[in-house]
Amino acid sequence: MGRSRAVVSILMVSVVLLPLNAQELPLAGYSNDSSRAERQWEDKFRAIPSADRMRDAMQLLSAYPHNVGTAYDKQNAEWIAARLTEYGFQTQIETFDVLYPTPKERAVELVAPTIFQAKLQEPGIPEDPTSNQESEQLPTYNVYSIDGDVTAPLVYVNYGVPDDYEELARHGVSVQGAMVIARYGGSWRGIKPKVAAEHGAIGCIIYSDPRGDGYFAGETYPRGAWRPKDGVQRGSVADMPLYAGDPLTPGVGAKPGVKRLAIADAPTITKIPVLPISYSDAEPLLAAIGGEVAPEAWRGALGLTYHLGPGPAKVHLKVKSNWDQKTIYDVIGKIPGAQFPDEWIIRGNHHDAWVNGAQDPLSGQVALLEEARAMGELLKTGWRPKRTIVYAAWDGEEPGLLGSTEWVEEHAPELDQKAVVYINSDVVARGFLSMGGSHTLEKFINDVVRGIDDPEKHISIWKREQLAAIAQASSPQERAELRERTDHRIEALGSGSDFSPFLQHLGIAALDLGFGGEENGGVYHSIYDDFYWFTHFSDTNFVYCRAMSQTAGSAVMRLADADLLPFEFGDFADTIQTYVRELKALATSERDDIIERNREIEEGAFNAAADPTKKNVAPKAEAVPPYLNFAPLDNSAAILQHSAERYAQAWDKSGAAHGATPSPEVSAEVNGLLRQSERRLISSAGLPGRPWYKHQIYAPGFYTGYSVKTLPAVREAIEQKKWTEVDADIATVSKILEDEAALIDSAAAKLATAKP
Amino acid sequence: MGRSRAVVSILMVSVVLLPLNAQELPLAGYSNDSSRAERQWEDKFRAIPSADRMRDAMQLLSAYPHNVGTAYDKQNAEWIAARLTEYGFQTQIETFDVLYPTPKERAVELVAPTIFQAKLQEPGIPEDPTSNQESEQLPTYNVYSIDGDVTAPLVYVNYGVPDDYEELARHGVSVQGAMVIARYGGSWRGIKPKVAAEHGAIGCIIYSDPRGDGYFAGETYPRGAWRPKDGVQRGSVADMPLYAGDPLTPGVGAKPGVKRLAIADAPTITKIPVLPISYSDAEPLLAAIGGEVAPEAWRGALGLTYHLGPGPAKVHLKVKSNWDQKTIYDVIGKIPGAQFPDEWIIRGNHHDAWVNGAQDPLSGQVALLEEARAMGELLKTGWRPKRTIVYAAWDGEEPGLLGSTEWVEEHAPELDQKAVVYINSDVVARGFLSMGGSHTLEKFINDVVRGIDDPEKHISIWKREQLAAIAQASSPQERAELRERTDHRIEALGSGSDFSPFLQHLGIAALDLGFGGEENGGVYHSIYDDFYWFTHFSDTNFVYCRAMSQTAGSAVMRLADADLLPFEFGDFADTIQTYVRELKALATSERDDIIERNREIEEGAFNAAADPTKKNVAPKAEAVPPYLNFAPLDNSAAILQHSAERYAQAWDKSGAAHGATPSPEVSAEVNGLLRQSERRLISSAGLPGRPWYKHQIYAPGFYTGYSVKTLPAVREAIEQKKWTEVDADIATVSKILEDEAALIDSAAAKLATAKP
Repeated sequence: MGRSRAVVSILMVSVVLLPLNAQELPLAGYSNDSSRAERQWEDKFRAIPSADRMRDAMQLLSAYPHNVGTAYDKQNAEWIAARLTEYGFQTQIETFDVLYPTPKERAVELVAPTIFQAKLQEPGIPEDPTSNQESEQLPTYNVYSIDGDVTAPLVYVNYGVPDDYEELARHGVSVQGAMVIARYGGSWRGIKPKVAAEHGAIGCIIYSDPRGDGYFAGETYPRGAWRPKDGVQRGSVADMPLYAGDPLTPGVGAKPGVKRLAIADAPTITKIPVLPISYSDAEPLLAAIGGEVAPEAWRGALGLTYHLGPGPAKVHLKVKSNWDQKTIYDVIGKIPGAQFPDEWIIRGNHHDAWVNGAQDPLSGQVALLEEARAMGELLKTGWRPKRTIVYAAWDGEEPGLLGSTEWVEEHAPELDQKAVVYINSDVVARGFLSMGGSHTLEKFINDVVRGIDDPEKHISIWKREQLAAIAQASSPQERAELRERTDHRIEALGSGSDFSPFLQHLGIAALDLGFGGEENGGVYHSIYDDFYWFTHFSDTNFVYCRAMSQTAGSAVMRLADADLLPFEFGDFADTIQTYVRELKALATSERDDIIERNREIEEGAFNAAADPTKKNVAPKAEAVPPYLNFAPLDNSAAILQHSAERYAQAWDKSGAAHGATPSPEVSAEVNGLLRQSERRLISSAGLPGRPWYKHQIYAPGFYTGYSVKTLPAVREAIEQKKWTEVDADIATVSKILEDEAALIDSAAAKLATAKP
Repeated sequence: MGRSRAVVSILMVSVVLLPLNAQELPLAGYSNDSSRAERQWEDKFRAIPSADRMRDAMQLLSAYPHNVGTAYDKQNAEWIAARLTEYGFQTQIETFDVLYPTPKERAVELVAPTIFQAKLQEPGIPEDPTSNQESEQLPTYNVYSIDGDVTAPLVYVNYGVPDDYEELARHGVSVQGAMVIARYGGSWRGIKPKVAAEHGAIGCIIYSDPRGDGYFAGETYPRGAWRPKDGVQRGSVADMPLYAGDPLTPGVGAKPGVKRLAIADAPTITKIPVLPISYSDAEPLLAAIGGEVAPEAWRGALGLTYHLGPGPAKVHLKVKSNWDQKTIYDVIGKIPGAQFPDEWIIRGNHHDAWVNGAQDPLSGQVALLEEARAMGELLKTGWRPKRTIVYAAWDGEEPGLLGSTEWVEEHAPELDQKAVVYINSDVVARGFLSMGGSHTLEKFINDVVRGIDDPEKHISIWKREQLAAIAQASSPQERAELRERTDHRIEALGSGSDFSPFLQHLGIAALDLGFGGEENGGVYHSIYDDFYWFTHFSDTNFVYCRAMSQTAGSAVMRLADADLLPFEFGDFADTIQTYVRELKALATSERDDIIERNREIEEGAFNAAADPTKKNVAPKAEAVPPYLNFAPLDNSAAILQHSAERYAQAWDKSGAAHGATPSPEVSAEVNGLLRQSERRLISSAGLPGRPWYKHQIYAPGFYTGYSVKTLPAVREAIEQKKWTEVDADIATVSKILEDEAALIDSAAAKLATAKP
């Protein structure tokens, strides 16, 4: 952090910088001595992870399907636990009992105007040795679909997000009493049946259009990396934006004996039956839909004319599950901290898959295991982390972050006290670094990744990310920021992997790291995501898995060993300012759009533009939204900015920027405050309508699922036109930001008492 | 014009206007009395055109294929001539003898890695009675392809425009010695073989991807309006941006005995052989191409992965033509002007087709014939136009504007003296008005179309156009202009129909009018563009053909009867200002782009972004373009603006704005100057490298074909990075604009001598 701050100061007087020798400045939060030692340990660490071992581990772990409830899932957990133990971790397997329905009956049939029976089956491929394990494979389905047996006219709803239903209404198409067919993409899959049910549909089919991840994108498996015609994307459709984890035990660990909801009362189970299908199964259905031709942006890559319906295609959908409880196996290994055993740096990746799951999740899991092995090697040669390091291999991520969520809920009080940071990974593929997380860690993780070598280009992964982003930037402003800003902006986190319960339920600062972007392929959640596929089309020589080990492991070590925790608030405050600007722009554009639309309705523009041979329904005039009072947010964002500057000055004056850390007593107090800094961003009441999500800065969108909504209460109130609620939401968030600023001020004041 | 100008003045003090009763203001260029009479004649005129008669005429004229050289082409010309004679026009058929190659041998064969023989044949459709006239149909081909017999590896070049070859180079793909396959669209088809040959290709195949006008767009014929799998787009591939008309007689009428180029020397014939194919013929070829996957924007709607090549697909292409001369038949009918017989208002539409040609060109031709019949009716009840009206039905438009160009070249001196305005039409379909032309006529044609009823919406076609444009506008700025500007902006004209020789070779002010935009369908230049298709899927009840008659006929009459010609220079000067702004922005972005690209090359951004498993070639650094001196253009555009204002003031003071036209002597002198106003915009030297195109404001793009380039010498010098030529081009255009301003000043001065 010291180094980065120094760079900022230099930038203020000149934008032309001589390259700094990173080795010459102490690591942020380290004294000169401890920095030197840390660099040596990290260098040793980064040399250890082995591509060959990762390959072997992946081959073993992906040898059989290992979804929740299978013998191989348990066996994998035990194997991972044995490895962690072997590496010197204090390891245990913690179990939970979760609701995990599996398919009993499944049918998708076109019953009019012609008859077609969907196969609902992914065939094995001769040259791919694990693709033929049909008896062990989980059939294609969407977990947490309600049971149902329905027949109705079919409507094509594009991605099935709220905007798509507005477009349908413009064409006079309703889904009331209909079956919808939505393509994958455009939102998290669980949003599709949720929004369909809100609009009165009685069944939902989701298919993989070849436009998304099939032949439109590239050659299909086994000739290429992309989804073959019978490939199906399994996946959860639980209403995760309400809460993650076991649908029956929101907020508490799913241990034997805890109070469980009745299945019928579980709010995250879908309201209508859902099944996923392949594009070869979807094609006859889509070809049979009549009515208006779908808007251009809705058309996929099948060789047919996409229509909206409803009908004449009529479809029968049947879904019945075994509504069983299954046991999940979280593997937890610890290295106790030598100085601060009650400060935990937690690192996790899930181990369960939908089928064989080579890329998802084993590419990340084998990277994590190599980190653990490498740390074990360091322990043997004398390294002792100051803080406790916790390595976790989660079970049940695929059905809904079950393993991580139940563990977080079960251990909430202890985590609230001890957790410093949670570092997550999941899929690793070839290509570019992706970084998401808490912006108080933005500068820290930038510093870490500056030291990691890109295995394809042999520049740092930070540099490659910067240069590639410049090459792909769409505006001079974007390029200027990429060139001039000290740190890459990290993504805010929504959901979709195990960071969510840590960050959004408990307020533990989190990071999510990954690699990808170079032909990730189209076998996601199918039987084809296996060892043969991964070693032919993805990170074939495991060099990005190795880079993942180096990146996440370095981050864990640097957090575990720091004298002063390297949280930083300048980037965070800057990011909050961008969110506030976005919200204002959103409110303005909502207002302007409604005013303009009302005017066009009055002018008759919609009627004039419409083709009278087609059905067109002009939108209805809407009340013009009020001007909103953003002043409280502006004020609190400004206060936060000042606090961040105060902390930076205190840091500088304390000597921390120059390798002179404060006394252990001062450091301990400051660290205690810093550890609480993310906790200050949650409110016990949680977000409006979804109290499980307590973080007031980051949440998965209620209608996007994985994609983040930042300052979610305010943003979603504006998006959902709940104008009367916005003032209260702004007040809540502003108070949170002011409390955060107060905490930062305390830390700054404490730090200022230290002599350089 | 008076009325419109009054509106402008009112707009200056208030943007809220009470609706004006158009009937109460005199027509622009008319005295109160003559305006009243004109309105009555026009009202009578607009009531006459009959949808039933247009239907009958289309059925007759489209009964058999009637391309150049067929008996039915001649028979149609004779029938049209008989009708014009019957309607009271002094009619003659004028013939020219033109080079018109027709297919002798055609072959497209995939010879490796598998064998496939393209059908090159459009099958008839049982329910469509004229689609089965196989013996009379012209085979699918591109006229003016050179003969050739070549075999080479295949490369997919997207649309085959210059940017596409830059993209290929980025992937390390060269077409040197290769066969290219390009999809239709993105440019005029003749550009594709031209650019392919410039890059070293030895053959060119053009196909209709279903993304453009096939099943991606809508249901295919006969179930819907769109191109069926075997449908082929015929069409000319002559290098028309060099010159239009007979390839052997540039600049002179192709009369017997005139000096003709040897075929081998004709520069507009392609350098490599070309054939068009259907998507069912293209699919096996495209599926056999290997190499890199094509960029996303290049992928069409066929159910395959689009690759770039070259090879392993290897294709044999054979094209041999009968290189015959054929006679073309232009039908010319005149109503002599009662007061100004040597001032001609010319109105034309072609009559030749590629096959049966119901929509193209007969939808426009039957509209034109009904205009002529209606004028004939008016003549019987006493109407006598002041100016001579010339109605023309052109032959040979399809192969390259042959009929209109040869006629214009043959009669150049007379036209130079007498022509006032040329009004063109071509295809008419359902939907929205489109207006292109000389901006000195922008206000005039806006005034005309305010009085035409939209047959679907029963508001004026002007109002429908305005409202639809508002509904589809993409920015508040665009909407504001649409709402506030008195006149719709009309399009500048490039090429693609018979206005081109009038406007761009001789400098005759021109208008091009059409309707369309509501499912125009995909049968363009195929055997399916016939009466059955048109009456099932296009303007099925001929109401837009009728609106076309009313629009073009009213414009002809209002020009023919005006006391003072309704040319206006305010809109023109305003339009020139927009072009100058565009040129400056273009120069800036060219400069900025090169600077940025050079910087990214130096930074290594291209290498960092590139996937090392794919072939990537970073672009080469380029010399940074100089700053350009736009001051002469700024000055001349400002001078033009002042002259336009001076003319407007003179018009106002003369009383012309209030129905008091000047004396016949003054009017005659002013009209004489106005008639010359478009002529002043040409230079005898023509455009750089293509002297046939003399207009300095509008030209078809050298690398776009149909699409216009405004201020073409300057714009293309910048686009083609001929930096050293830009100054001279700016000087030429500036001089032209100053000369125009001087002419306008003369007209203003003359007008100012009139007493109100």
